[in-house]
Amino acid sequence: MTSACDPSLLAPGWAGSPAADATDERAYLRALLDAETALTRAQAALGLAPPEAVAAVAAAADADRFDARALAERARGGGNPVIPLVADLTEAVGQEYGPYVHRGATSQDILDTASMLVAARALGPVLADLARTGRALARLAAAHRDTALPGRTLTQHAVPTTFGLKAAGWRSLVLDARDRITLVRASLPAQLGGAAGTLAAFGAYGAEDPTALPGAYARELGLAAPLLPWHTLRTPVADLAGCLALAAGALGKLAADVLTLARTEIGELAEGGGGGSSAMPHKANPVRATLIAAAARRAPQLAATLYGSLVAEDERPAGAWHAEWEPLRDLLRLVGGAARDAAELTEGLRVDPEAMRAHLDLTHGLIVSERLAAELSPLLGRSRAKSLLTEVARRAWTEGRGLSELLAEVPELKEVDLTALTDPARYTGSAAALTDRALERR
Amino acid sequence: MTSACDPSLLAPGWAGSPAADATDERAYLRALLDAETALTRAQAALGLAPPEAVAAVAAAADADRFDARALAERARGGGNPVIPLVADLTEAVGQEYGPYVHRGATSQDILDTASMLVAARALGPVLADLARTGRALARLAAAHRDTALPGRTLTQHAVPTTFGLKAAGWRSLVLDARDRITLVRASLPAQLGGAAGTLAAFGAYGAEDPTALPGAYARELGLAAPLLPWHTLRTPVADLAGCLALAAGALGKLAADVLTLARTEIGELAEGGGGGSSAMPHKANPVRATLIAAAARRAPQLAATLYGSLVAEDERPAGAWHAEWEPLRDLLRLVGGAARDAAELTEGLRVDPEAMRAHLDLTHGLIVSERLAAELSPLLGRSRAKSLLTEVARRAWTEGRGLSELLAEVPELKEVDLTALTDPARYTGSAAALTDRALERR
Amino acid sequence: MTSACDPSLLAPGWAGSPAADATDERAYLRALLDAETALTRAQAALGLAPPEAVAAVAAAADADRFDARALAERARGGGNPVIPLVADLTEAVGQEYGPYVHRGATSQDILDTASMLVAARALGPVLADLARTGRALARLAAAHRDTALPGRTLTQHAVPTTFGLKAAGWRSLVLDARDRITLVRASLPAQLGGAAGTLAAFGAYGAEDPTALPGAYARELGLAAPLLPWHTLRTPVADLAGCLALAAGALGKLAADVLTLARTEIGELAEGGGGGSSAMPHKANPVRATLIAAAARRAPQLAATLYGSLVAEDERPAGAWHAEWEPLRDLLRLVGGAARDAAELTEGLRVDPEAMRAHLDLTHGLIVSERLAAELSPLLGRSRAKSLLTEVARRAWTEGRGLSELLAEVPELKEVDLTALTDPARYTGSAAALTDRALERR
Amino acid sequence: MTSACDPSLLAPGWAGSPAADATDERAYLRALLDAETALTRAQAALGLAPPEAVAAVAAAADADRFDARALAERARGGGNPVIPLVADLTEAVGQEYGPYVHRGATSQDILDTASMLVAARALGPVLADLARTGRALARLAAAHRDTALPGRTLTQHAVPTTFGLKAAGWRSLVLDARDRITLVRASLPAQLGGAAGTLAAFGAYGAEDPTALPGAYARELGLAAPLLPWHTLRTPVADLAGCLALAAGALGKLAADVLTLARTEIGELAEGGGGGSSAMPHKANPVRATLIAAAARRAPQLAATLYGSLVAEDERPAGAWHAEWEPLRDLLRLVGGAARDAAELTEGLRVDPEAMRAHLDLTHGLIVSERLAAELSPLLGRSRAKSLLTEVARRAWTEGRGLSELLAEVPELKEVDLTALTDPARYTGSAAALTDRALERR
Repeated sequence: MTSACDPSLLAPGWAGSPAADATDERAYLRALLDAETALTRAQAALGLAPPEAVAAVAAAADADRFDARALAERARGGGNPVIPLVADLTEAVGQEYGPYVHRGATSQDILDTASMLVAARALGPVLADLARTGRALARLAAAHRDTALPGRTLTQHAVPTTFGLKAAGWRSLVLDARDRITLVRASLPAQLGGAAGTLAAFGAYGAEDPTALPGAYARELGLAAPLLPWHTLRTPVADLAGCLALAAGALGKLAADVLTLARTEIGELAEGGGGGSSAMPHKANPVRATLIAAAARRAPQLAATLYGSLVAEDERPAGAWHAEWEPLRDLLRLVGGAARDAAELTEGLRVDPEAMRAHLDLTHGLIVSERLAAELSPLLGRSRAKSLLTEVARRAWTEGRGLSELLAEVPELKEVDLTALTDPARYTGSAAALTDRALERR
Repeated sequence: MTSACDPSLLAPGWAGSPAADATDERAYLRALLDAETALTRAQAALGLAPPEAVAAVAAAADADRFDARALAERARGGGNPVIPLVADLTEAVGQEYGPYVHRGATSQDILDTASMLVAARALGPVLADLARTGRALARLAAAHRDTALPGRTLTQHAVPTTFGLKAAGWRSLVLDARDRITLVRASLPAQLGGAAGTLAAFGAYGAEDPTALPGAYARELGLAAPLLPWHTLRTPVADLAGCLALAAGALGKLAADVLTLARTEIGELAEGGGGGSSAMPHKANPVRATLIAAAARRAPQLAATLYGSLVAEDERPAGAWHAEWEPLRDLLRLVGGAARDAAELTEGLRVDPEAMRAHLDLTHGLIVSERLAAELSPLLGRSRAKSLLTEVARRAWTEGRGLSELLAEVPELKEVDLTALTDPARYTGSAAALTDRALERR
Repeated sequence: MTSACDPSLLAPGWAGSPAADATDERAYLRALLDAETALTRAQAALGLAPPEAVAAVAAAADADRFDARALAERARGGGNPVIPLVADLTEAVGQEYGPYVHRGATSQDILDTASMLVAARALGPVLADLARTGRALARLAAAHRDTALPGRTLTQHAVPTTFGLKAAGWRSLVLDARDRITLVRASLPAQLGGAAGTLAAFGAYGAEDPTALPGAYARELGLAAPLLPWHTLRTPVADLAGCLALAAGALGKLAADVLTLARTEIGELAEGGGGGSSAMPHKANPVRATLIAAAARRAPQLAATLYGSLVAEDERPAGAWHAEWEPLRDLLRLVGGAARDAAELTEGLRVDPEAMRAHLDLTHGLIVSERLAAELSPLLGRSRAKSLLTEVARRAWTEGRGLSELLAEVPELKEVDLTALTDPARYTGSAAALTDRALERR
Repeated sequence: MTSACDPSLLAPGWAGSPAADATDERAYLRALLDAETALTRAQAALGLAPPEAVAAVAAAADADRFDARALAERARGGGNPVIPLVADLTEAVGQEYGPYVHRGATSQDILDTASMLVAARALGPVLADLARTGRALARLAAAHRDTALPGRTLTQHAVPTTFGLKAAGWRSLVLDARDRITLVRASLPAQLGGAAGTLAAFGAYGAEDPTALPGAYARELGLAAPLLPWHTLRTPVADLAGCLALAAGALGKLAADVLTLARTEIGELAEGGGGGSSAMPHKANPVRATLIAAAARRAPQLAATLYGSLVAEDERPAGAWHAEWEPLRDLLRLVGGAARDAAELTEGLRVDPEAMRAHLDLTHGLIVSERLAAELSPLLGRSRAKSLLTEVARRAWTEGRGLSELLAEVPELKEVDLTALTDPARYTGSAAALTDRALERR
């Protein structure tokens, strides 16, 4: 009955992505039902419910039978969707085993557990896409280990670097994101505490040791067992916020660089399948990078809302918890979409080494002035080297002549191999060695 | 074909609200089509398109004919939904008048205009709900003009105030929000600039004065005429962010107070239709206030993303614009839902003046110690008054006896009307006068 | 005794600016003392204090006599600096008139009033610098009314525009910021309510109509009279947040464009006095734009914190208020510094029309393909025009030949003035007219 | 020459704290000079500088010799404070060894390294204060292992819990913060890359293997060796943002609960040394909790700015980096101050078990209705149990009579030990067991 609809007309960044599927209405509904089923199952495992109850709940807990839209509107009454869902599920299970539905639990037990399930499921494809991205970047870094291009700082050419080092740096961020997400994903806990986190109702229903129940429940779901009920101890949500914000930013750095280097005037990079424009059919827009950049602009503030919800008063809070649900879904979607876009972007990225090489000459050789300052001082004395360089730099800039040409006119430098010394492509320092080192990281 | 689905299982705060309807997929689709139709209409008004083209476009621009989900996925290609929509609309219009669809415009012209239409439409019910809330609060303020309760500062009883002044203060914030939203709503501009904001294509298609077109277009849509194309001059979006963040916070203040005063130990206020709990059927949760509080926690960060998108490079940006769409929709929904909840909350609010009165005595009269310090000094001298008050305050607190009782034992005060002087309900200062003054504001 | 020290080693964006002076420790101390003095003065004006008390307080309220650092540490006790300041000021005033210091007020009355004074004072130079910036941009827009350059969208050349229109757009944002700041600045209210906002203590001290006092107090300070005490009705702070975030973003847009157009490969713009680099003496970094960009990255989140503080419970809150102080100061400083930098940047901006002109040819004429599609259709028929353009566009791109050259080979176009039709500088649409219109705004 | 001034009149939350000292102007100046000294030292260790240069630099790098205020203003030129500092340090070192100052490095190498040093130093006292807080909470949890109080959800009494479990939960968050900070602190890397992160200049100055230098440099400073220069790979800063935002939120949760439970009407908790009010000398404000709450409101948005700065274009960015400096300092200060306040708060917290016990009766026994529903069903049948409970609950509420009293009148329950069944203090579920388990965590 639930249409798996996504509100995604405004979301080209994640529409149609695996993360979109993993976080849509149906996915949440399924996770909520999985949580309810696991709860009955765990109680049965501890002898608190008959096996028949498990079968009855499992049979009834079919997402397609529930009307998500109607649940959404009925959720207004108590402020969360679990209340009407439990009513419908109980009815669907029937009179005999209905009482075993949701027994002893509070709405937050189910919704928090469902959120962790959804997160765990959505992060699977995210990690896969980060892995694809990492591999594509490793290939780019290796292939362009020695491809020189201008290093740019504060938008200006500084000294040369290599595209290999650039790609290795992007990959390093992607691996940082992967490592943090992997760690957090493995720690996502089930939630079970009952009305105020004391597990008291489970005892009232006959459990000898209610503290055994959360672990059993977590095992059913493949989630981590919580040390304590965490209704207002929101570290798991904050940890998700952190790793997702980092992932968005990591991909955002890559996107920012692609957007810069794909500029019409620069053209060192181009997206494989550039997006068309409605007005100018010839335009090859860096659409993947654009959408990643948009995600990276939004993620930090969504994470801030989640960090802010750590401040959750009492045993279960009035607002802080409710403020988490949509931002967490948004973050999963944004990062999921950005990871997919990053994989496509990096796998299809077109690199133009000739353009890179050509740009090294745009400053008439001044891009190696740092090297000259360092290497001419021992030959000419610091003071003479400095004044000479200041002079030729000025002339190179104003006359538009090459630094090497101007230096060749200086008698004291007759013996010096100016070609080598002023070749930007030979002043990439340890870029290749650093690239090799970075690629050793797995 | 479009199902008007809302992703609102996680959104009891706005599911089913007028703002939800005004911002759902179909609403955006309709606004996009309205923008396209108005564009053809405006061109026809200036003689740039035949009347038949208008009729053809208007007939084809029926939201129900388009598949929002498919458009969403095809939006990935160029990074926005207008590109596939124009393709479908052009085809639907047919070969003869198809060329008049979207003629001279850029995707952003249409999407920005649609966003402003959606905002203007969604803000209608928001203003209506704020007006309802304001009226309910005016009634509460008038009815409780002289209902004394403890003024609380840093969580502690300070001096008495009145519930009338409290309600008048809430109303004052609601009117502030109303005023700012009203102003911004009236200023929302249509967007029309063409590929880079120069209106050049309209000239190429034959317009003598393309600068007349944006005004004609705006008139068709009931939006303001822009002074300049604002593809990267995002004041309208920032203004929306500001007034919506203010509205969320204004309602959030009201909600925070209701949540406090509805606490089991305080019980001075209760929501009319408190929400049930899945675990404890008797619990009357302040659900409306909870959902408003949740919205207020999220709105500032959504606004921050929109303010951040002011930094939009070039003639049309790669990311800043794309990052606006969902947060603006989210803000409209959150504030729309919160305004609806505030109207229901304030119209149904139950006030318990007896509980308020009783709490005035919780500090054994210390709640009027400020008054005593001021009024006993002229009688006893400052130094004696101070030491006396320090002493009786200490005793009142430790012995749990009333301040008036203790003061009655002081010979120097025999002549003083201690009953009046120590009655908290008679120390509400100018609360009533301030309430009257505040209620004069319309 | 107070050293006017700024913590600005990490703040090149605002160190040494007028806003820095207007918001430093001494400035706040002075504003706090101004508020206390005005309070006594207003009470004297209403006959509640002798003129001698005014003289005594005014004489003692000399910022240089107070030890800001010690006050800061003593502020921990009660959580705000007014408490120890009142103690010191009372002692300095002496036994006779000391009791008139701070009489009837609460700490928040003084600190809120001081914050508004500081804001009003800091916004003076901000408005002056925005005015300078606006004038500089008007000059640039007028001077470059017809200077064509590539319009860029999603980082790619789209169609031509003019630098005049670009500068006029920047100016438009600056005027938007100016208008909003001017409005907010004129509305900044004094704060006076006493312990819980009822003005009760003033009555206890003998005022016949305490509601007259806030107005008198505001007049003494040159601030607006508040309709109600606004201890927890924080519209004034939210309004400041909004206009300051808008100003930061408005300048951030200008900075983003300068950073792009100053790139080594683009070089259409350069800052007048580019900053040196410690490593490469020749590098001319766009430092002013960099520092503005940094401010624009921070302002939205600072504003979010202030919007969040609208949610302030009770009569005076435990935390929301305290969370405002530093972010408001930070915002004033950031915007103050950015406005100063924007004035210097725009006044010294170097424009290179030749570079702009040259870049118009980078796409081999494709930058006017939109025009050709529009204007060749009537001549050749839509279908033929389209296929012809697709073909020549492909060849222009792959062969690196100019579009006009390729079109000249097409027999059907022999009669067409291809020079005019393909000249990017003649396809700037209404850019000049829009610039003129925008410059009419004052 | 540098006055160790803090801009802290508006910062009672961190003024005078160890974190304030560790992050003031002098601390940054010292860290910058430490970084420069370590750079020379590391070069000497690799044979690239004479030992005399080390001695000369170390002698000159005395923070007291430099004028922080003047450096701050001169920092405007190039946009960072390292440029003028290097000029002054070079001059101070003198002509012979001056050339070894900052040799091969870029400003960002020094400022990033200094930021990491400052962070590492500031986090020391933070961890110590978190440890104090954790110990104090462990004592509270153990002491109140069986102290029952109402569990509150959505502001309403739900079922009983214990103060021990509450304190154990707070401690759990504090340990989460401690663990994350400890991990991040140990990973903070030195920064060394030269102008564009290739280490090229070090080679030009004669280093055989420049990639050995960053490790040597890191060892001198006690920081981690970076895998790559991280000028635009900002994981270390994002990791700091994450752990600091989590710490602020963790302490904010504790503060929120203290603020609630210290309310005049609740009074279950009180701060040991409550802050006075300027208006009412008797008021005992929860000042420590207030200031922690204020920090928790600000930290998420500061973290958002830092996460946003992950998007840093090129080899060194124009703005993203500059936007990090002050927010990182602010976060360190806020968390440092909050940790100090939390230590004082928890060590001095006054608990009132009688008040807690008394509040368990406020709902006339309904606080155990969940238990009754569970335990009476087997006795009475589900349907009868439900209707009976609904009826007595209604009567308990409206008649103000106790649930146990009303149930005692029910004949079917004659045999049941209603005293035990309805005693809230005996319905704390697994609270004690969970507390024990939580306290095992070290």
